[in-house]
Amino acid sequence: MTKPIIEDALMNLYCDMNFPKTLIMADLGCSSGPNTFLVASELVKSIDKIRLELGHDESPEIQIYLNDLPHNDFNTIFLSVSDFIKNLAKQTRVTKSSSMPPCYFSGVPGSFYTRLFLKQSVHFVHSSYSLMWLSQVPELAKTNKGNIYMSRTSPPSVIGAYREQFQKDFTMFLKCRGEEVVSGGRMVLTILGRRSDDPRSKECCYVWDLLATALNDMVIEGLIEEEKMDSFNIPQYTPCAKEVSNEVEKEGSFEIDYREVSEVDWDACTDHNLNVTKEDAKGYNMGKCMRAVAEPMILNHFGESIVEEVFMSKEQSAFIKGRQILDDMFILNEIASWCEAKKKKHMFSW
Amino acid sequence: MTKPIIEDALMNLYCDMNFPKTLIMADLGCSSGPNTFLVASELVKSIDKIRLELGHDESPEIQIYLNDLPHNDFNTIFLSVSDFIKNLAKQTRVTKSSSMPPCYFSGVPGSFYTRLFLKQSVHFVHSSYSLMWLSQVPELAKTNKGNIYMSRTSPPSVIGAYREQFQKDFTMFLKCRGEEVVSGGRMVLTILGRRSDDPRSKECCYVWDLLATALNDMVIEGLIEEEKMDSFNIPQYTPCAKEVSNEVEKEGSFEIDYREVSEVDWDACTDHNLNVTKEDAKGYNMGKCMRAVAEPMILNHFGESIVEEVFMSKEQSAFIKGRQILDDMFILNEIASWCEAKKKKHMFSW
Repeated sequence: MTKPIIEDALMNLYCDMNFPKTLIMADLGCSSGPNTFLVASELVKSIDKIRLELGHDESPEIQIYLNDLPHNDFNTIFLSVSDFIKNLAKQTRVTKSSSMPPCYFSGVPGSFYTRLFLKQSVHFVHSSYSLMWLSQVPELAKTNKGNIYMSRTSPPSVIGAYREQFQKDFTMFLKCRGEEVVSGGRMVLTILGRRSDDPRSKECCYVWDLLATALNDMVIEGLIEEEKMDSFNIPQYTPCAKEVSNEVEKEGSFEIDYREVSEVDWDACTDHNLNVTKEDAKGYNMGKCMRAVAEPMILNHFGESIVEEVFMSKEQSAFIKGRQILDDMFILNEIASWCEAKKKKHMFSW
Repeated sequence: MTKPIIEDALMNLYCDMNFPKTLIMADLGCSSGPNTFLVASELVKSIDKIRLELGHDESPEIQIYLNDLPHNDFNTIFLSVSDFIKNLAKQTRVTKSSSMPPCYFSGVPGSFYTRLFLKQSVHFVHSSYSLMWLSQVPELAKTNKGNIYMSRTSPPSVIGAYREQFQKDFTMFLKCRGEEVVSGGRMVLTILGRRSDDPRSKECCYVWDLLATALNDMVIEGLIEEEKMDSFNIPQYTPCAKEVSNEVEKEGSFEIDYREVSEVDWDACTDHNLNVTKEDAKGYNMGKCMRAVAEPMILNHFGESIVEEVFMSKEQSAFIKGRQILDDMFILNEIASWCEAKKKKHMFSW
């Protein structure tokens, strides 16, 4: 859970800034769904809690920028803003005799690997489970034959290209935020990562290996053209903690106050109404998450016709092309870290 | 044209603020369509022109807030931002050896009759053809029988209720902007208005009278329920210049630097490919504009089934329920002021 980390960072910010009357916050990679306002809610409640703890009567006004790529569904977010504010006001009124800080929302379309805000204009940046997505698939000197991600059978140049793309993107992210965040501002980032130093380790690659195997089978069956398969690679890099720290130190705009690596509990997202065993539930969750993440990319690259073939679902267990993903519980546990992409796991926060 | 007024206001702002490094601008009621970026484009080009005139080397960074109600189609706007920036960069590079100021866009959902931005955070507010829309239909003590807007046959209490709603809304607008705009900031507002002191004058009411007659006919024909007709009123008020000035003076947050009332040329929006006479073109334009404005309200209140009955279009002339709107050219010329709602006309700018 990043909640205590956010509270710590905000408390420091609030005191360092000498209790500002206005606070400008940004959630980068906000997406559009039930989780979008969860972050905003945490931020606003934290500020209110801190204000009360420090004995300040007046709430600061809060500007919250919600950022994601331009094709994100901002319309749906915007239609929910007034209900969100009403609910939050009700919650803060019920839990303590405090008033909700006035909040102003705006949507900011664009890649967080570019500048998004005015110079020195933001106090607090938050980003959760977005920074492992690269700005693009790295340019590969050699075809990543039979694979769609870094894998044990990938040429070393592929691994290098992925690492370099991450370094380049993450540095650009830090540089842009360094220009935008006021001196003394804070950032809390949660990134999907790995414990191992090896980027080809099973914990991050196995799930893509599984999908690659399914796609390779479909090439053999003639359902997918070989060239299409050769040119399909996932634009993701799940760094280890040391890689993140190195880039932050090298770029120089920020200092790390706190860093934590933690594992996710698969059960956290289980629908307890499902009548399945605990192990089945884990498999089901994993299948659901994987489809949610990979389907848009597969659709975009290969077209609609093959999607149902790739992901097959039966009796509440998840399959990838007939390969029941519960076969190997050991591996499942290892890669559990990956699939809770929209919750918490392997996070580096500072 | 408000262009010279905007340039004047920005020039004053730019000098008063001592050539700021960042400028925060808001377009209120930005809508979603080809006109949305027209304003942004004018603002950015004006700033660049002023900077060059004053001999400053460095462009300020510009934040542009695009505001409209939450159901506005912000997704479409956001998908156009990067193309807009590319085109603008090309234009500024071609016309003079200058560079485009860095621009950051964000969408702000909400009514401009409420607070939208942090205290003292905006330098320049622009709003064009939006402020004649009231926050709601005024509460009427008596039914506005047979009418859908202020009319010669409306009870005096209806006229009073409309005027009061405008005063209340416009005062709230000024109060909110007064809190948000920095001291010395500027606002340029263009409002659809009237020359006459009488709010029931033909120049603003005739077009709604025409629509009311069509709807009344449909009540007689049994196509619309009488109660439905009785409860349908248009939430608009087109003030005269004096009313605007009075409210600004009473509220007190702003001073009027400049005010202008002007008339629109109907021909400005004529599609010259149409093979029709000049008079037919005026009627056609009016019919198109009127349908664009009134259709969503009619749809919302009466349902989809009657819309085609109300607006009938034939051979590139516009009709309202069989009443060819070219019948009375005198009246057409008078109300021409109203229909160019998305261009310029009867504007009060300061």
